Amino acid sequence: MAHIKSHKDALLARVRRISGQVAAIERAITNETTCGEILHQVAGVRGAVGGLMDELLSDHIEQHLARPGLSDAARAEAADELIAAIRRYAK
Amino acid sequence: MAHIKSHKDALLARVRRISGQVAAIERAITNETTCGEILHQVAGVRGAVGGLMDELLSDHIEQHLARPGLSDAARAEAADELIAAIRRYAK
Amino acid sequence: MAHIKSHKDALLARVRRISGQVAAIERAITNETTCGEILHQVAGVRGAVGGLMDELLSDHIEQHLARPGLSDAARAEAADELIAAIRRYAK
Amino acid sequence: MAHIKSHKDALLARVRRISGQVAAIERAITNETTCGEILHQVAGVRGAVGGLMDELLSDHIEQHLARPGLSDAARAEAADELIAAIRRYAK
Repeated sequence: MAHIKSHKDALLARVRRISGQVAAIERAITNETTCGEILHQVAGVRGAVGGLMDELLSDHIEQHLARPGLSDAARAEAADELIAAIRRYAK
Repeated sequence: MAHIKSHKDALLARVRRISGQVAAIERAITNETTCGEILHQVAGVRGAVGGLMDELLSDHIEQHLARPGLSDAARAEAADELIAAIRRYAK
Repeated sequence: MAHIKSHKDALLARVRRISGQVAAIERAITNETTCGEILHQVAGVRGAVGGLMDELLSDHIEQHLARPGLSDAARAEAADELIAAIRRYAK
Repeated sequence: MAHIKSHKDALLARVRRISGQVAAIERAITNETTCGEILHQVAGVRGAVGGLMDELLSDHIEQHLARPGLSDAARAEAADELIAAIRRYAK
């Protein structure tokens, strides 16, 4: 997975930010923070997960579908993975 | 656009169903139907538009990215279109 | 449904715009326009339906839940309708 | 926030499951797992966050809007919080 390797640091930084946001929600519920604040934080995590998904989908399209020199079989497999991810993601 | 041509009838049938659903919402508002009923109908249209989008995205991936024999330039253009559509669609 | 009545013209204008967008998609498919263009139009309809849903949900919350003087039973019914619509809408 | 308190354990269990899913994504990227697998895991987190949001929204509607005996001011504030959360959530 060349593109995971080449974007590893950036992807890990995004994922760790999301981990931090989820930990903040755990603290907010533990401390019985206001419902409005918790709703706001959860909507924020959903947005961040969306951003991570956008980046992964774009990389996947560029590296496993559009990149010159891929085999027809590799492209077909990547297409199936992409279609499954989009269907689940847009739900 | 070979795949639009080959799926034309199926795509048009989907779009006309959505047109019918939207016309039903127009009647419901004109007749001051209950808010709950109108909310239900609008959520239904959103689901139907999602289904249409899924079908178009899958066709686009298969026909303009994964299909054997495409030029690198054609794949690159299709990749850009797909990434833009996914970003906008998942918002 | 007082608030449907009071916002009728604005709501109908929104719905008619969506009808126009769906009709444009029908023409684009009939004329075998590019896949990228059709994807763009469908993502646009989804956004417009989202805007309509936001307006309806806000009106429903204000008029059937938060408005002073409502009965407990009326609020309870409106709460059930709202929860069902949100669940379906966010899918 | 009575309802956060009364549902605390269930909410914390959900949030900790999401934390676990995010940690699994971090490991998958660190270990350069396949792109398809990571896409699948991220779509799963998005779904789990959606489930958490649904539960919080429903509790908020029932406890801060529909519950008998609330003041008009309290309902108005809860309505504003809810509308803001729905707008951000459905994006």
